[in-house]
Amino acid sequence: MAYNELYQYSVVSALMEGLGDFGLPYKDLVSHGDHGLGTFRRMDGEMIALDGQVYQMKADGSIIKVDTTGGSDIAPFAQLTRFQASATADVEFKDKQGFSDALSKLLPKTKNHFVAFRVDGLFKVVAVRTAGGQFCRHENIRELHKRQTTYEFTNVRGSIIGFRSPDFLQGVGVAGDHLHFISDERDRGGHVLEVTTLEGSPVKLSAAVQSKVHLEFPEDEDYKEVNLKVDADRIRIVEG
Amino acid sequence: MAYNELYQYSVVSALMEGLGDFGLPYKDLVSHGDHGLGTFRRMDGEMIALDGQVYQMKADGSIIKVDTTGGSDIAPFAQLTRFQASATADVEFKDKQGFSDALSKLLPKTKNHFVAFRVDGLFKVVAVRTAGGQFCRHENIRELHKRQTTYEFTNVRGSIIGFRSPDFLQGVGVAGDHLHFISDERDRGGHVLEVTTLEGSPVKLSAAVQSKVHLEFPEDEDYKEVNLKVDADRIRIVEG
Repeated sequence: MAYNELYQYSVVSALMEGLGDFGLPYKDLVSHGDHGLGTFRRMDGEMIALDGQVYQMKADGSIIKVDTTGGSDIAPFAQLTRFQASATADVEFKDKQGFSDALSKLLPKTKNHFVAFRVDGLFKVVAVRTAGGQFCRHENIRELHKRQTTYEFTNVRGSIIGFRSPDFLQGVGVAGDHLHFISDERDRGGHVLEVTTLEGSPVKLSAAVQSKVHLEFPEDEDYKEVNLKVDADRIRIVEG
Repeated sequence: MAYNELYQYSVVSALMEGLGDFGLPYKDLVSHGDHGLGTFRRMDGEMIALDGQVYQMKADGSIIKVDTTGGSDIAPFAQLTRFQASATADVEFKDKQGFSDALSKLLPKTKNHFVAFRVDGLFKVVAVRTAGGQFCRHENIRELHKRQTTYEFTNVRGSIIGFRSPDFLQGVGVAGDHLHFISDERDRGGHVLEVTTLEGSPVKLSAAVQSKVHLEFPEDEDYKEVNLKVDADRIRIVEG
């Protein structure tokens, strides 16, 4: 695939309805990019892909290198691209909103586009959650996230991988900025709830607009039958 | 492009806001398929693509064969696929709802997918409208459609080309079924408002699910700045 074309499997609103039993095998998924995020069968943990490697970040704090050559794991939802930064900047921010402001400054007028981004460096605080996996088939993601594990890492070196999605595509992607984190040692990570950089110690932000988006819709019975209502408030609470 | 992968340039909600000045050149567009619909610069008429040929159906009733080898015309919005029917049936229907019911019977459980379809045969009545083009830059499509021309063709042989889009993607596509018509003689056509077949004289319906969708977002300033709210009622009135 060409650089900076976003590939997405399924839609976030299907995940919200608890559709975690089917998905694209990771061995197929990686042909679509080296930079991305997503989840695993039954929402067991958070996925991050960077530098050609895919990691499963689990609720017990463990991190597994995913076998993408022939493993059996699947992604019920994933966004991947072959990332090449079109702009970079050294930035500091106090929180996720500060990060979004920095991204909007680096790539202005991107509210109607998907944007891929990456942040590398030393962070003062990164607060994450990791989904613990469904207890039963089709368990609603609201129930699932009552059992999520949260961690707070301080003075941690690592990388954030993420995507900005347009507001009018809430439910297809997560409207706004969606960030996953992994430490340089690949021993800590998850879905970013909050993030702060150290004063006087900027991190490196790289980003690129993805104006071509390849959406793949599941062909499974569960997907065909589910009622996909866009519940913006719920997506914001669970994935924002 | 492989068969039955939908390519879409821009989103319907951008068209609703009157963004008709920019678009993809038709000579590039046709590389993405031989079956589709869309519009032209400043919404001057309705586009239909079938059997590898693109036609511009204008409000004055004239139909122009579009030069796709090097012409200067552009599509502010278009949906195209390389169509190969996965199912066909001989059907009769009294109205657009009857058509939709026939399509849902032919390809059940397609509410969460895009579907490409085609209908060929002799129709009792086909009522169409053709957009007359914007009088001024960014003229809102609601104003534009106050000047639309409508025609009613009776006992006409021809083809309908169209797409079904999921409800949860209203604003990206036109939720539900979107139909354009052209006569066998290529002398009459437009956006289908109503359609009826003759009793005892079925037409041929062919269709195929499009589970891979390639969305291309414009990179023009107008697109970057527009506020894209999904106005489902308005889209239903104007494009339904």
